[in-house]
Amino acid sequence: MIGKLNHVGVATPSIEESVKLYRDMLGATSIGEKFSMPEQGVWVCFVNLPNAQIELIEPYGEASPIHGFLAKNPKGGQHHVCFEVPDIYAARDEMRAKGATVLGTGEPRMGAHGVPVIFVHPKDMGGVLVELMAEPKAAH
Amino acid sequence: MIGKLNHVGVATPSIEESVKLYRDMLGATSIGEKFSMPEQGVWVCFVNLPNAQIELIEPYGEASPIHGFLAKNPKGGQHHVCFEVPDIYAARDEMRAKGATVLGTGEPRMGAHGVPVIFVHPKDMGGVLVELMAEPKAAH
Repeated sequence: MIGKLNHVGVATPSIEESVKLYRDMLGATSIGEKFSMPEQGVWVCFVNLPNAQIELIEPYGEASPIHGFLAKNPKGGQHHVCFEVPDIYAARDEMRAKGATVLGTGEPRMGAHGVPVIFVHPKDMGGVLVELMAEPKAAH
Repeated sequence: MIGKLNHVGVATPSIEESVKLYRDMLGATSIGEKFSMPEQGVWVCFVNLPNAQIELIEPYGEASPIHGFLAKNPKGGQHHVCFEVPDIYAARDEMRAKGATVLGTGEPRMGAHGVPVIFVHPKDMGGVLVELMAEPKAAH
């Protein structure tokens, strides 16, 4: 089912500081603009590598779902891993049929790449919060 | 400096259980054999995706460096992210010159891909344990 590893989600208290880190310390040369996803409660910024991305996420608003993660990890850290799947609805149904817990209502919602995504609970994924996303039409 | 995202390191109390998860739950179709790296204190198993890998790591021996991580995260979880660099010695020197802490002696040592690697302390990397590895000669 899973295809490419699309991105690693990295939570940060400050996207600006993280951008300095990836740009100036690690020498990444392609970093997008920061943008907000109010419905998801996050600011997002992509660090583009030749084969995948780092998705920097910073809390947006008081109800952001990543406040808890940053309370436990004040400097930030690895938050989720995202894999591409050919059919997000089939993936959702398959995860459920195999006993995994799909977060929220289970209805895929629009992710930062403009394609629908779901999240699977880390308790069923070896402690890893797994995002599944429909394969984007444009190559990244 | 950094090139491809080579792999995400995922610590697990049981590679066998994690292989079931990636194979049977997530449908990964290319998973290598488990092998030991006694000097690094880990068992390793690669889940091969079209563009990158998940590196499953399980403690090997009582002195394994990942016992502490698993004590905090008994189900396992994301342990490190590995980026490829063209020259591991230049990367080591550049990290140090920019004030980052390279773990251990700082001398690159052989990693699971048969090329030298270093690790950079998460306190300097936004809470992410970063592995840098020399670009492997064979495509993965």
